[in-house]
Amino acid sequence: MEVRIEEARRFMEQSLMAVQTPESEAKAHADLLVHADIVGHFSHGLNRLEFYINDILSKATVPTAKPVILKETEATAWVDGCNALGATVSNFAMDLAIQKAKKAGVGWVAAKRSNHFGMAGYWALKAEREGLIGMAFTNTSPIMVPTRAKKSALGTNPIAMAAPATGGDSIVVDMATTAVAVGKIEVQMHKDEPIPEGWALGPDGKLTTDSKVAFDTANLLPLGGLEETSGYKGYGLGAMVEVFCSGLSGSKSTHNIRGWEVNSQGGPPDLGHCFVAIDPECFAPGFAERIADCLHHWRSMEPVDPSLPVLAPGDKERINSEETTKRGTIIYAQKQYERYFNIAKRIGVQPMETV
Amino acid sequence: MEVRIEEARRFMEQSLMAVQTPESEAKAHADLLVHADIVGHFSHGLNRLEFYINDILSKATVPTAKPVILKETEATAWVDGCNALGATVSNFAMDLAIQKAKKAGVGWVAAKRSNHFGMAGYWALKAEREGLIGMAFTNTSPIMVPTRAKKSALGTNPIAMAAPATGGDSIVVDMATTAVAVGKIEVQMHKDEPIPEGWALGPDGKLTTDSKVAFDTANLLPLGGLEETSGYKGYGLGAMVEVFCSGLSGSKSTHNIRGWEVNSQGGPPDLGHCFVAIDPECFAPGFAERIADCLHHWRSMEPVDPSLPVLAPGDKERINSEETTKRGTIIYAQKQYERYFNIAKRIGVQPMETV
Repeated sequence: MEVRIEEARRFMEQSLMAVQTPESEAKAHADLLVHADIVGHFSHGLNRLEFYINDILSKATVPTAKPVILKETEATAWVDGCNALGATVSNFAMDLAIQKAKKAGVGWVAAKRSNHFGMAGYWALKAEREGLIGMAFTNTSPIMVPTRAKKSALGTNPIAMAAPATGGDSIVVDMATTAVAVGKIEVQMHKDEPIPEGWALGPDGKLTTDSKVAFDTANLLPLGGLEETSGYKGYGLGAMVEVFCSGLSGSKSTHNIRGWEVNSQGGPPDLGHCFVAIDPECFAPGFAERIADCLHHWRSMEPVDPSLPVLAPGDKERINSEETTKRGTIIYAQKQYERYFNIAKRIGVQPMETV
Repeated sequence: MEVRIEEARRFMEQSLMAVQTPESEAKAHADLLVHADIVGHFSHGLNRLEFYINDILSKATVPTAKPVILKETEATAWVDGCNALGATVSNFAMDLAIQKAKKAGVGWVAAKRSNHFGMAGYWALKAEREGLIGMAFTNTSPIMVPTRAKKSALGTNPIAMAAPATGGDSIVVDMATTAVAVGKIEVQMHKDEPIPEGWALGPDGKLTTDSKVAFDTANLLPLGGLEETSGYKGYGLGAMVEVFCSGLSGSKSTHNIRGWEVNSQGGPPDLGHCFVAIDPECFAPGFAERIADCLHHWRSMEPVDPSLPVLAPGDKERINSEETTKRGTIIYAQKQYERYFNIAKRIGVQPMETV
C-alpha cells in the first residue's frame, strides 16, 4: 500500500494528538517515525506507532510531560525525562548536548525516566546536521543473552554515531549491540525461512536456526555470536551502553526493565538514554575533508562480488532515503496498512489515504 | 620460562633505556607492557618490546620527545604526540582528559603523531582508578576488511571503556573491532590448528579456516564476521574509531598508515588516539552501586554449561591478574624468552633471570 510521505506524517501526528499529545510533540514524534520509514527501517517507523499510542493510553507515557534538568556543568547534564514521549525527552536532551558542545567542545547528557526513543541514528544525525559528531545510546527491555548465559539480561542497547563530511556527506553508524534486531528474525519467520547460526538461542540455551523458536524465545546473541566468534565483545558493548544509560542517569538497569509489547503493562519503563555531541572545530582543522576521504576510499574498494559494491556505514539508509524521497511515497505491507486502518477508526482519526 | 614480575619490569625498563629512552618514559612504557602480561594479553606485553626498540632504533619513534597541546577548551584538547612513545603520548593525553573531566564533567582529547599505545584498556583504567569512566581508542595499521571488500582498509581499531563499581570492582571492555586480534590466528597457526569461520578472509576474498593462510593474508573480518551475521556492524565500529582518532586529531587515516612489523620501515606511523574521561558525580548519585548491581546480576546468571560460569566484561583479565600477582611471576614461552635473551645481548642489557 503506497502512501505519500506527507500523508503518513499527517496520520502519525493526528493519531498522537488524538490521544492527547500536544501538537509540537506529535509533530516531533511523527518526524522520528517517518524518518525510520524513509531510510528503510520499517520496524521503527509506523510499525511502532501502536506501541506509543497504547503506552499513552495505559498512562505509562505522559504525552504532556516536560523533561527537566536535574544537574549540569558546562559540558554535562543529567535530565529527568518525567515519563514524557521518547522524542520529547530526546529532543530536549540532544539539544542540550548540542548547545554544550558548541560552547565547551563536548556535551554529554544522560536522561532517566524516558520511553522508547525510536531509531538511535535519528538522534545522532540531529547533532551531525549542526556540523558536530553526534552519538546516542539507550537501554531497552531485556533481550540479549550475555555470553555463556541461558537467559537475557541486556537489551538491544544500540550505539549510534554520525559524523559530517564535506558536500553534505556523512558516516552514520546505527546498530543494536545484538547480532541482529528482533525484527530481522520476525521477517524470516513470516517468510517461513530459517535464520543463520549466530543470531539467537533456543530455550535450551543452544543455537537455533528455527526462526519461530528464536522469535518466541527472544534470546538474541550479542554481536559476534557465540564465545568462539567473539560474542563477548557484543556483550561488552551492551554493557558499555548500560554504563552510559542506566549507570549515569539512574534509570532502571536493563535487567529490571519490563518487556515492551503492543499492550505492555507495568507502568512507565524508566528507560535511560545518553546523548553526546562533539565539536570537531575544537580539534584538528580539516575534519570534514578527512571523513570525506575515508568515505571515498571505502566506497572505491574492489568488492568480492562485483554486484555488491562496498558501502560506507550509513550508505544503505542514504540510498533508501533517496529512493523514497524521489518517489514521494512509503510502501507499507498490506497487513500493516489494515492494522492502522482499524486503529484510525478506533481513535477517531482519518485513515491514511493511499495513492 | 618463569620470570618474577619485577624482573620482567626491570628488563623492559633497562631495554628501553638502552636505546636512549629517559627513565621516566621507560618506566611508563614498561608498566603498560607488564600490565598486559599480568592480565594475560601476552600479545601486547613483552612480545611487543622488540617492535618498540626497533621503532626507536629506526627513528620512527623519538623516545625523548614531549607531546604538546595545540588547542584546548575546558572539556577538550588537541594534542601533537610529536612521535613520542605511545605511552608518553597516552599518559599526557589521558591525564589531560582526567583533569578536564574533574573540572567540566567530561574530557575529550585527541592526539596525532603517536605510536603504538599497547593495550587500550590500560588507558581506560587510568581514568577508572580516579573514579571516572575512561575510554580509549586508536587507529592502527590496516588489517580489517570492510564488509564486501577484498582487502583491508581499517585497523583493529580498538574500543576500551572502564567504569568503577563499589568495592574496587569495575566493568572493563577492551576489544578490537575486528572479530579477533591477529594474535589469536597466530596461536592457532603455531598449534597447526584451523580457525573458526568468520575470523578472516583468504587472498580470494572468501572465508578461510586455514590459520596459516589467514595469518599470511592478514585480512581480518570485522566483529560479526560476514554481512549475514552483521559484520557491517564491526566495520561501522571501526569507522567510528577512525572518526574519533584520525578524524579529530588529523593523524593519518588507517588506509594511509604503513604496516607495523618487527622491522617496519617508512618512518613515523602517525597514529591517532582518542581519550575520554567522564565524571559520574555530574550525573545521578549512586553510579558505582548501579554498576555493582549489574556486575552481580550478570555473574549470578545460570550458565548454559555449568563448568563455564557467566563472566562480566573484564572478569577474565581480573582472574588472570589475581593469579599472576599471587604467583608473583609471569610465564613466558621458551621461544619468546630466548628471543629476548638474544635481544638483551644485542643491546647490552642483563637478560631476564628466571626463577
